[in-house]
Amino acid sequence: MELVEKALGFIVEIEKLKDVQRKTRPVGLERYENSAEHSWHVCLAALALKEFADVEIDIQKVIMMLLIHDLGEIDAGDTIIYESETRENKEKEAAGVKRVLEMLPKDQADEYVALWFEFEEGESAESIFARAVDRIPPLLHNLHGDGHSWRENNVSKEMVLSLNSRIADGSNEVWDTLKNQLHEAVETGILK
Amino acid sequence: MELVEKALGFIVEIEKLKDVQRKTRPVGLERYENSAEHSWHVCLAALALKEFADVEIDIQKVIMMLLIHDLGEIDAGDTIIYESETRENKEKEAAGVKRVLEMLPKDQADEYVALWFEFEEGESAESIFARAVDRIPPLLHNLHGDGHSWRENNVSKEMVLSLNSRIADGSNEVWDTLKNQLHEAVETGILK
Repeated sequence: MELVEKALGFIVEIEKLKDVQRKTRPVGLERYENSAEHSWHVCLAALALKEFADVEIDIQKVIMMLLIHDLGEIDAGDTIIYESETRENKEKEAAGVKRVLEMLPKDQADEYVALWFEFEEGESAESIFARAVDRIPPLLHNLHGDGHSWRENNVSKEMVLSLNSRIADGSNEVWDTLKNQLHEAVETGILK
Repeated sequence: MELVEKALGFIVEIEKLKDVQRKTRPVGLERYENSAEHSWHVCLAALALKEFADVEIDIQKVIMMLLIHDLGEIDAGDTIIYESETRENKEKEAAGVKRVLEMLPKDQADEYVALWFEFEEGESAESIFARAVDRIPPLLHNLHGDGHSWRENNVSKEMVLSLNSRIADGSNEVWDTLKNQLHEAVETGILK
């Protein structure tokens, strides 16, 4: 019963991710997105795009990574990809992930912390694909939302095209499609 | 490229779940929860509680179910468990799930629609556990949030104890722990 109570404590603790505000607004909504709903969204995005991965991936592992990838933001907050993250912030995020996951029994905590570091390192096929997928919703939010977050954060077309080209590491086909949409956005003046 | 565009269309469409309001407030937040962040939350809740499942379960399948379990609410909205769902609403939800999932390629759509029906029927070990987990966050929101949603929706202790006893079908140990906490809530007057 004590172990169940601890697990319930974990479930309450991670709820704080619902209060971490990101820098884009979901399509059709006035408010900004939070990191909890984003985490759900990228899991389904990964499922929708898995057939386009350039190499074979274990999609269940990708989903596990994406479910936990932002837990460190409970302590560290969200950083937009166009701002370089300080080493201090990265360390805060890693410590935060550990703090939260270590509320679970040791074997589970160890497994998920290792998975988070694998995601962060971005070297395995699954982490490369997961990191590519993680970049996609903010692009769609801007493409379908008059480039609001690019404008608000002074993000240029050069920055968007260069920093998101990492999507091609996960799927060339997905990046080609998005690149086309981004070039259209440049033509219509949404992306400057 | 056309298939990628369709997948991106799906990713944008499901975002509407971020705008479906539920009946409880996350712990510590003033606003109500939405069904997208709830979907993420129950996935991690399932991971945290999987060791307490009464029978062997395929946790990846549970997570897949929980990721998609509320997609029908995009068209049908959320219904609190203490209100009996009309047949009309259930049909609307099923049609909504199909409409959304059929934006994906046929084999994927068929697989996920079947998984949604398996969840709804609640007969397989995975669906029993997933449905048990789905009940837990609203209890925690009330237990840690002065019973706000019970009060707002005129939900009695008899209703809470009887309608949530289904959690025991997934895990007796989890239900025993929660039942203790609910009895304490009755003693402190949070649950009447």
